[in-house]
Amino acid sequence: MQAGGSAGVSRALAEFVGACRWEDIPGAVRREAHRALLNYFAVALAGAADPTLDIAVQVYGRFAAGRQASLVGRAERTDVLNAAALNAMAANVYDYDDTHSPTIIHPTAPVAAPLFALAQARPMRGDELLLALVLGIEAECRIGLAVSPGHYARGWHITSTCGVFGSAMAAGKRLGLSATALVWALGCASAQAGGLVETLGTMSKSASVGNAARNGLLAALLAQQGFAGPDAPLEGPRGFLSVMGEPPQPDAITRDLGLDWQLLRNTYKPYPCGVVLNPVIDACLALAGDARVADAGLACIERITLTGHPLLRQRTDRPGVTTGRASQVSAQHAVAVTLARGRAGLEEFSDAAAGEPMLRDLGAKVEFRDDAGYSVDAAQVQLTWRDGRQLTRRVDAARGSQARPLSDDELEDKLLALAGGCRPGWDARPLIDALWTLETAPDAAQVMALAAQAATPAGGGRDRDC
Amino acid sequence: MQAGGSAGVSRALAEFVGACRWEDIPGAVRREAHRALLNYFAVALAGAADPTLDIAVQVYGRFAAGRQASLVGRAERTDVLNAAALNAMAANVYDYDDTHSPTIIHPTAPVAAPLFALAQARPMRGDELLLALVLGIEAECRIGLAVSPGHYARGWHITSTCGVFGSAMAAGKRLGLSATALVWALGCASAQAGGLVETLGTMSKSASVGNAARNGLLAALLAQQGFAGPDAPLEGPRGFLSVMGEPPQPDAITRDLGLDWQLLRNTYKPYPCGVVLNPVIDACLALAGDARVADAGLACIERITLTGHPLLRQRTDRPGVTTGRASQVSAQHAVAVTLARGRAGLEEFSDAAAGEPMLRDLGAKVEFRDDAGYSVDAAQVQLTWRDGRQLTRRVDAARGSQARPLSDDELEDKLLALAGGCRPGWDARPLIDALWTLETAPDAAQVMALAAQAATPAGGGRDRDC
Repeated sequence: MQAGGSAGVSRALAEFVGACRWEDIPGAVRREAHRALLNYFAVALAGAADPTLDIAVQVYGRFAAGRQASLVGRAERTDVLNAAALNAMAANVYDYDDTHSPTIIHPTAPVAAPLFALAQARPMRGDELLLALVLGIEAECRIGLAVSPGHYARGWHITSTCGVFGSAMAAGKRLGLSATALVWALGCASAQAGGLVETLGTMSKSASVGNAARNGLLAALLAQQGFAGPDAPLEGPRGFLSVMGEPPQPDAITRDLGLDWQLLRNTYKPYPCGVVLNPVIDACLALAGDARVADAGLACIERITLTGHPLLRQRTDRPGVTTGRASQVSAQHAVAVTLARGRAGLEEFSDAAAGEPMLRDLGAKVEFRDDAGYSVDAAQVQLTWRDGRQLTRRVDAARGSQARPLSDDELEDKLLALAGGCRPGWDARPLIDALWTLETAPDAAQVMALAAQAATPAGGGRDRDC
Repeated sequence: MQAGGSAGVSRALAEFVGACRWEDIPGAVRREAHRALLNYFAVALAGAADPTLDIAVQVYGRFAAGRQASLVGRAERTDVLNAAALNAMAANVYDYDDTHSPTIIHPTAPVAAPLFALAQARPMRGDELLLALVLGIEAECRIGLAVSPGHYARGWHITSTCGVFGSAMAAGKRLGLSATALVWALGCASAQAGGLVETLGTMSKSASVGNAARNGLLAALLAQQGFAGPDAPLEGPRGFLSVMGEPPQPDAITRDLGLDWQLLRNTYKPYPCGVVLNPVIDACLALAGDARVADAGLACIERITLTGHPLLRQRTDRPGVTTGRASQVSAQHAVAVTLARGRAGLEEFSDAAAGEPMLRDLGAKVEFRDDAGYSVDAAQVQLTWRDGRQLTRRVDAARGSQARPLSDDELEDKLLALAGGCRPGWDARPLIDALWTLETAPDAAQVMALAAQAATPAGGGRDRDC
């Protein structure tokens, strides 16, 4: 019942993960691993104080076996499994984390969180952590490719469903598992794969993202002790690919493995929004800085015409949103707040911003025009005033897209800005430096010690054990 | 995008669970709840010492926050979430637990395990536990009905995928959640639903069964603190039913809710085997007791013809199995061992039994004859000797089927036999008595104290904390 060419992809992936060395990783991939971590800590600092985390830290904390592990941007300490879950939740809660373009997996959160937790429980050099990170992300994204695009379209939250494999392979690599035990870890991860798109925009989503990080690590720890699984958890007749692929393309898991690296398709968001909004926000920022817009005034605008790929309308035509979470995927809100404030940071997508009547009125003037000739990284915004004046901005490659990636400086600025929101006045420079030099660090856990310092010691209940 | 008639099934189910009282439960359902628990503890005692549990108890035990909760048939104590997972694993590890006939869900393990764990952490009367058990099983089986039969056929391990909802509703009921919080618990459960048929027969399966019990309880604890989810986690456009149903029948969740009880379709296995083997084993037991078989001798049998529903062949035509686990779903082994020993207990489906050459030779004489006129509860076994003699036994309703349910005495005997296997000489009578009188017990946790006593204190490492 195995599809043609799929025989043995579980085993082949496990053998690759088991054998790969840091010397085998090309320089560009190594650099991207550092950039992915910069972005990971930036967004985890941003999400650390969200109410989702407040509740999860409190409830998960009741079931913590110890205090070995830290939380990014929080003062509580917890055990390794909980830290894996909670830090992954923090990094993903605003969907402000990285995006593997071909699958829209947010790859780093479910893989980095368990690795740094493990680093706090057992010695781990920086290059060891980075190698496991690269391999975990490689496994996660390739398994995602093998079920895309039907998997997400059906309603699977692909970051959760594939993240558990990334965590399992990363942790299994660090635990030094044999290829057979790595296949068992894939099997135990497959039994735990879950997460639904229906939960997006609610706290429930974070449960599956946390599970991906936690349960992949658990799968590796179980496999280390001989907890056996099926021989072909991915490609078997009732395995992950055939059950959750629509239809599966098992070859994507092994094609050019070790030659073609998924981290090179990773992108970082400049704005805390659905990725299809990026070019719209770029255009609106340019318009907001245009003296002619200030001159004509926002109040007298008659209509705002968005031209873009049909996906732009399908995913973001949401007038009248009332929560910050919902505003992150509302073109109406994104356009209005960016034009009005000339900024598009987390504050612009808060509950407070979503509740502003002026912004709702301005957003109501948005009209969509589908044009399949646009890529999803492109969009045009046209403002039309009552007196007939018009101003138009077209963006062909949004900031943060693969064609126009965020620079290292922009990633650092993102981390500095989000750290400032987490703990005003705190100096995030040492964390940034530690991330850029992680490859030569004798103890990867030092990064977590720095990241935990961003906690506000007197913050509401945040200095207790969890 | 909601299917006709499905509007609001999440809310309707939550409101039913929230409002239902013990007085609303018919006597026959109450009685079946007691019987389900008798069977649950029987099979959990059987599974407690399996190597799957040895590993899981050790690894999960590293992440235990306390010692509030007991394990059935083991001396270790652990925290409430771990106990929920581990006791559910024990009860299900041999697939010897109960079966909800229309869905083939094993319903009790994922629901009873979290409830008894919770009972050890907060006061709970027996009738309170029983009510939550009935409602959890009702929710779990109805959600299973809404995705059956396509869900299991596609490769979903339905006990795991639906068990998490049963656990969430049972725990949510005991925590006194509002209807809104119960919908959130369903949402958080939906984000955690997973488990694949590919893992059956391996330790990996137990990870998803444990998760169902553990994560449903976690979902309820999170919902209690305000961890919000989608409004329609089941029937929403990207919710559980549409993503995991093939196609879904949402009406099954609410049709005759409170009138038609799923526990009344629950069955208990007389043998530790795939349920389709039950009539075959019945027939072989009768033949083994027939003096004419002893007279003619097993050695001179030429062929053994099994006639039954095509599913019998499809699921159990497995010659040459080498492990106890595989022998549980092998007609060849089941026929041979039952004819040879006149028994069909756990010892007959052990690694040792599966390795006996005489049994393999006898099993090799099995031939299948499909007859769609047979129900899955019926089968015929015909022995043909080299000298032409023939003996035939036909069973129309297997022991343990809905038409011929195990009696209360047979359930007690099953518990006594399996407890004897767990700890020879231990008196399981007080546990049986406590289960029959649970309805009036002021403290449901007393049952767990008794069930833990079946542990062998000096057993290999089993008297340590976990």
